[in-house]
Amino acid sequence: MNLLYAQAGGTTAVINASAAGVVSAARARGCRVVAARYGILGVLAEALVDCDGIDVEALAATPGGLFGSCRLDMPAEESQPAFYDRIFDVLAAHDIGGLLYNGGNGSLEVVAMLSAAARRRGYPLVCVGIPKTIDNDIEGCDCCPGFGSAAKYLATSMREVCRDLASMTSRKGRVFVMEAMGRNVGWLAAATALAARDEDEAPHIVLFPEAPFDEIALLAKAEHVLTKLGYCAITVAEGIRHVDGSPVRARTHGLDPHLRFGGAGEEIALLVSGAFDCHRHYAAPDYLQRSAAHWVSAVDHEQALAVGGAAVEYALEGRDGMLAAIRRLDDAPYRWDIVPVDVARVAGLERRVPREFIAAEGMQVSEAGRRYLAPLVEGERPVRCVNGLPAHCGGELSGIARKLTPYAGFAADLVYARR
Amino acid sequence: MNLLYAQAGGTTAVINASAAGVVSAARARGCRVVAARYGILGVLAEALVDCDGIDVEALAATPGGLFGSCRLDMPAEESQPAFYDRIFDVLAAHDIGGLLYNGGNGSLEVVAMLSAAARRRGYPLVCVGIPKTIDNDIEGCDCCPGFGSAAKYLATSMREVCRDLASMTSRKGRVFVMEAMGRNVGWLAAATALAARDEDEAPHIVLFPEAPFDEIALLAKAEHVLTKLGYCAITVAEGIRHVDGSPVRARTHGLDPHLRFGGAGEEIALLVSGAFDCHRHYAAPDYLQRSAAHWVSAVDHEQALAVGGAAVEYALEGRDGMLAAIRRLDDAPYRWDIVPVDVARVAGLERRVPREFIAAEGMQVSEAGRRYLAPLVEGERPVRCVNGLPAHCGGELSGIARKLTPYAGFAADLVYARR
Repeated sequence: MNLLYAQAGGTTAVINASAAGVVSAARARGCRVVAARYGILGVLAEALVDCDGIDVEALAATPGGLFGSCRLDMPAEESQPAFYDRIFDVLAAHDIGGLLYNGGNGSLEVVAMLSAAARRRGYPLVCVGIPKTIDNDIEGCDCCPGFGSAAKYLATSMREVCRDLASMTSRKGRVFVMEAMGRNVGWLAAATALAARDEDEAPHIVLFPEAPFDEIALLAKAEHVLTKLGYCAITVAEGIRHVDGSPVRARTHGLDPHLRFGGAGEEIALLVSGAFDCHRHYAAPDYLQRSAAHWVSAVDHEQALAVGGAAVEYALEGRDGMLAAIRRLDDAPYRWDIVPVDVARVAGLERRVPREFIAAEGMQVSEAGRRYLAPLVEGERPVRCVNGLPAHCGGELSGIARKLTPYAGFAADLVYARR
Repeated sequence: MNLLYAQAGGTTAVINASAAGVVSAARARGCRVVAARYGILGVLAEALVDCDGIDVEALAATPGGLFGSCRLDMPAEESQPAFYDRIFDVLAAHDIGGLLYNGGNGSLEVVAMLSAAARRRGYPLVCVGIPKTIDNDIEGCDCCPGFGSAAKYLATSMREVCRDLASMTSRKGRVFVMEAMGRNVGWLAAATALAARDEDEAPHIVLFPEAPFDEIALLAKAEHVLTKLGYCAITVAEGIRHVDGSPVRARTHGLDPHLRFGGAGEEIALLVSGAFDCHRHYAAPDYLQRSAAHWVSAVDHEQALAVGGAAVEYALEGRDGMLAAIRRLDDAPYRWDIVPVDVARVAGLERRVPREFIAAEGMQVSEAGRRYLAPLVEGERPVRCVNGLPAHCGGELSGIARKLTPYAGFAADLVYARR
């Protein structure tokens, strides 16, 4: 069976490890893998890459999505039948029997829609989802590859900054805020709580999109910490919301009406420093947190590899419409396996941080939350460096000759957009 | 001889490695080392710590300043003689013959002033400076411990983000800006240029405080890169300035008149995304860049250890008023040694990025600059982790019993400020 692999959505430090897992498993099973450039767009454009010569070890250590990724709102087949015709023309032209789509919630909808379309058309295609997202918000998957590494990076950063904060004396005290990604979910913000081994260690406060922002309670807790320690470290998920559900945004961002989110961390830093006339510092790691391949979680990396390999097995076994989901068997010692989950049941959903993972006061992670998070950041991996910097996967991708005419249908402008 | 060691100014990922170098060398030479809490403030407060039981390996792997640091504008002896009286009373009470002060430009002024004061008083004190600053701006020192690690962290981050940027397709293109520390000097911004192995790799543009900000030239170059690649990565030093010398600040920061610097990176991201209607992302690593002990430069770490050890030798040799400065012997293969430099000649100065290290167009690092920077990020070090996060130096510091009455003079409020 020929397999087509594609990456979709925001990339992570380990999505290429899943690609490596796919390529390694396919080689072991004697299958050929081709990869689409820029996700489903590369299928439409017939921009395909031969994975035969890929160095899987280098691939598995490279951040970003080597084959390119995309965000595309899939049209329904009724509204854009030609779009689906094109996809199946390309799959048929290259004799593809299995499609492995590596992405988050939105990408699982693509899997579900293509699976249904193939059945309607009688095209023999097995569609399998491979989970990926730093947001950790795929339903039915205990944790998502990419999350553990971003979590480890942010928790490590918070622990390191705590040493810095504790070093400096000052008359005024200081507040430090780190903004974590997460527009609707606070998983990454929560993970920074692992940095603290006791209540005096950073982060002293964690703000989640799942818990409405209570300014009075925040200031009361910040004052308590500032009085006790002289500094206060706060993690803010970028998507925290007021009680009425509106996003907390930097007051300064009123200048940019198109920006729905942005600057929540800066706003909290301004708020606290203004209330207590203390120094403020504000870190926004932004893309750094999702591409920090120099400091991945070994558990996360192993899981990313494993879901790629499992997806190949599912394809060969004909498990159409399944996600290769991670299942937790035990917290400590941590044990997990991979099980098939029906993508139609979980696509488009969003798993938020459950209430029991948030402390009663709403501004810290509970013990149950810590038990869940702790194993996901475990383990380090060696990094291959050249001249002191990570080497990453290089080399040209080996394009496969096109057999069809260029695509001119729905979203063709995006398909052929400059990268 | 009893030695007093103190840390001052903003901390780095390796200032504790210099402390470890001091303690190790002193042990080897049979000297006792006491450390002051929070720099010179701890001398005034007679808040001293016994270094006998310190685990130097753990210390050398811990970011921040374990003993605490401070920023204090030293008064002149004429204006505050009691301040100096107190310092020498404490030194005498604890029989201190050598003072090792670990800091940047401002801290070297402390060394020079205390050295002069001791001579005037006939107090037998050898004052030695140990260089430290991520800003890399100490005159007479080829590079400053702390810089190489922050440089490696930022260059690594930029290289990783480049993989992420290259992954995504979009109709609109995207600009990514990373703001590096550096209010007056662009050394850290310059270091990110090491991430690029060719002109298509990030960062495509580097903006320095040393080169006046030219909006027209920036937009022209950004447009060229966006057209070619579809994305453009820019490093902005926080202290970039307009042609008239005024700092480039976020337009949004007009709301905060007390903030002289801040948001230069955000401003550049707004400017470019506004001009070309492209997506924007903006990272502000802030304290993360100076405390990232999980990813230090082995060269930097070795130099941090070595200047600590050399300072002990200088103290024992009676080389009063000297800085243990790093001297470069060769770029490649990199060779260096440590030489004494008169602190009175270099204190309070500021070494800026020289014009020949900046490309002719003013927005990139020259080949000469790359040759200078390249060896400073070389080498990695293992990180001891517990539960997936760096362990760091723990344990209580062992305080030394006070012999004098509490201090009540100049800056006593700061001396006894909450941390």
